[in-house]
Amino acid sequence: MYIQTINPKVNAVFDTCERIWINANLATFDAAVQASYGALAAQAIGVRDGCIAAIAPMSAFDASAVSAEIIDARGGWMTPGLVDAHTHLVFAGSRAQEFEQRLKGASYEEIARNGGGIISTVRATRSATVAELVRLSEPRLQALMREGVTSVEIKSGYGLSLEDELKMLRAARRLGERNAVRVSTSLLAAHALPPEFADNADGYIDLICNEIIPAAVAEGLVDAVDVFCESIAFSPAQCERVFKAAQQHGLGIRAHVEQLSNLHGAALAARYGAWSVDHLEWLDEEGVQAMAASGTVATLLPGAFYFLRDTRVPPIDLLRQHGVGMAVATDLNPGSSPLASIRLAMNMACTLFRLTPEEALAGCTRFGARGLGLEGKVGELKVGMQADMVLWDIDHPAELAYQFGVNLVRERILAGEVHNV
Amino acid sequence: MYIQTINPKVNAVFDTCERIWINANLATFDAAVQASYGALAAQAIGVRDGCIAAIAPMSAFDASAVSAEIIDARGGWMTPGLVDAHTHLVFAGSRAQEFEQRLKGASYEEIARNGGGIISTVRATRSATVAELVRLSEPRLQALMREGVTSVEIKSGYGLSLEDELKMLRAARRLGERNAVRVSTSLLAAHALPPEFADNADGYIDLICNEIIPAAVAEGLVDAVDVFCESIAFSPAQCERVFKAAQQHGLGIRAHVEQLSNLHGAALAARYGAWSVDHLEWLDEEGVQAMAASGTVATLLPGAFYFLRDTRVPPIDLLRQHGVGMAVATDLNPGSSPLASIRLAMNMACTLFRLTPEEALAGCTRFGARGLGLEGKVGELKVGMQADMVLWDIDHPAELAYQFGVNLVRERILAGEVHNV
Ligand SMILES: [Zn+2]
Ligand SMILES: [Zn+2]
Repeated sequence: MYIQTINPKVNAVFDTCERIWINANLATFDAAVQASYGALAAQAIGVRDGCIAAIAPMSAFDASAVSAEIIDARGGWMTPGLVDAHTHLVFAGSRAQEFEQRLKGASYEEIARNGGGIISTVRATRSATVAELVRLSEPRLQALMREGVTSVEIKSGYGLSLEDELKMLRAARRLGERNAVRVSTSLLAAHALPPEFADNADGYIDLICNEIIPAAVAEGLVDAVDVFCESIAFSPAQCERVFKAAQQHGLGIRAHVEQLSNLHGAALAARYGAWSVDHLEWLDEEGVQAMAASGTVATLLPGAFYFLRDTRVPPIDLLRQHGVGMAVATDLNPGSSPLASIRLAMNMACTLFRLTPEEALAGCTRFGARGLGLEGKVGELKVGMQADMVLWDIDHPAELAYQFGVNLVRERILAGEVHNV
Repeated sequence: MYIQTINPKVNAVFDTCERIWINANLATFDAAVQASYGALAAQAIGVRDGCIAAIAPMSAFDASAVSAEIIDARGGWMTPGLVDAHTHLVFAGSRAQEFEQRLKGASYEEIARNGGGIISTVRATRSATVAELVRLSEPRLQALMREGVTSVEIKSGYGLSLEDELKMLRAARRLGERNAVRVSTSLLAAHALPPEFADNADGYIDLICNEIIPAAVAEGLVDAVDVFCESIAFSPAQCERVFKAAQQHGLGIRAHVEQLSNLHGAALAARYGAWSVDHLEWLDEEGVQAMAASGTVATLLPGAFYFLRDTRVPPIDLLRQHGVGMAVATDLNPGSSPLASIRLAMNMACTLFRLTPEEALAGCTRFGARGLGLEGKVGELKVGMQADMVLWDIDHPAELAYQFGVNLVRERILAGEVHNV
């Protein structure tokens, strides 16, 4: 038997809301809700001043007693807005013909000799203006938004000079101003060694620490630093210098680590309180323990694993055992993951890394947010959080990781306002 | 030096056109054009009565001399409309929770005991009306169309009774009437053994040959037959009976073969002049030779390979050596390929099967069409073909298989008319 028990106190809060979705099933990802997906069936959820102000079962809600705009979700599912916590979506040029050459049998060396590889993206990005970068990158950003992304991280890393790194970050900030999406920026100057510093990696790290980071901070362009810690990129000692500079400037710390080998970059970054370490195919248990101790998120990038035809899966079971939060992101970039789809990343996290659909969705909400230093602001449906939400045309949240190609977004909501793309 | 040489004869043909795209780069996939992608740069292409009536270089075209509607492609690329030559997109129910159970460790046996597997899709599809099947399936079809698909094959195979197989085909036909897309139907009654015929597979084959095929033909519902030739489905001898019935009724022949084992189904189907045999992970050279002799297309389904985490790749090099045409299709279905994206199928054909971008795109145009018995009608940009075309926002046709997530369709054209979705 179903008894409707109107709760006057709840309705007093709803009465202060500007907009209320009713008859919604919520996948809250609120750890306090003891159910898969943090699910609450048949709820009303109200927003005020861009934040979630009230959540209550429909049985406790009296629509006739409130003056807010009412939207009937008709039994659809509401999740937190999706978070893509790792992208390189600002760049110029295309690597499609390099992809084609490789499939025709060209080696990486031949492609590099023909001017291909990351350096071709650096060249094209250096030649582009901020306005050109925005124009080229906006379709990629909007493809993510169309799938329900409300927060996205964007890295620099194809400029590799003071002016060109700042230019990329300005493009990222401008994308955030022009579009209904939260953009979090990471300075990834330590992505590759620019030709000007061949044989002088330490000199380039000097430039990053002494000039690029301070200038980016002064202009308000940067939320975190990022590094590529790998034998083909930068050593742990070099990365550590970047982390120290970041700490001095109060920036978050992220790192590409343990993708191709185990340099113990995860443990190093964790010692500096990193928000997230990413890739992790070669991560060992010591690294996992360090991440657990520091609360560092493991950001999984199955798109790069797929595109590079990697066979070594990150140590998912170890991450689970030690309670390390796992984010799932696209790694959208022209060289190793030209896949502008968070839903595909979720499907690949399940299919290739054997995450459950619940883990994949948590990775694109709660843990994606934590990896961007946004825990407690976005990524959960909870009173007080920003009202970034997606209302989906689905019968069960497992649909989101399972099927692919049909866009299931009914309403994409940023700060309480519907912004469909 | 660039000399413009107007050709009066060419312009006389263009003057009879209703619509002309100018400044287009064409990926014709016309075997007579000796270039990758059958590419012709800087062309005008005119349509009349739904067909391609004229193609000529811009240098030979005088816009002032024609009265047709002119659309400036501004250097974009035009390809044939995409063909998805293998889908099971008409079905009811969802297998998302089965996907979730599997990722939580349930075995196939446990899932089957809980009523999961193909039989759950059969149950839901049998319970649905034609109108319900159309409503549930249309978003899947439109997701394909949005990516540039103009011809799509749709199979029955979840009804497994006279009435329910016909119902699925009626839904497929109705989808074709309601949407600007060509639908080709395949009767796949020999997909799985219905519970009513447990231990009497031959009796079910009798029903297919003696009742279902004739009824489907009488109602104009079916273009080809299809079978699942596998130890868990139907034997070569049973499949052969279906092929014979199809021949008697003048239907095309298609077959799911060599997916899980080698029963020599490809060679058998080729002996009956099959349009296409599909999957082919276990295909051997004898089968390839038989296909080459009969002109049977090899339809590759990398989405199912990916979703099932298969590791055995079809013998692509053998198919190339013997000159067998390769189609690429989605296999869109709820059990083994819930991926409604032809662009993803193209990317997976390259990434997982090592096709070149040109082969992948040929697989979704010229060879997809051949696999549907539509060679000479669609799948190439050539005078006399149906004017099914896509104008893309790309600089090079390799982009279509390389990147993913950004929809690059500028105009989707069916029978000479723009039908964006
Ligand atoms: Zn990255
Ligand atoms: Zn199939």
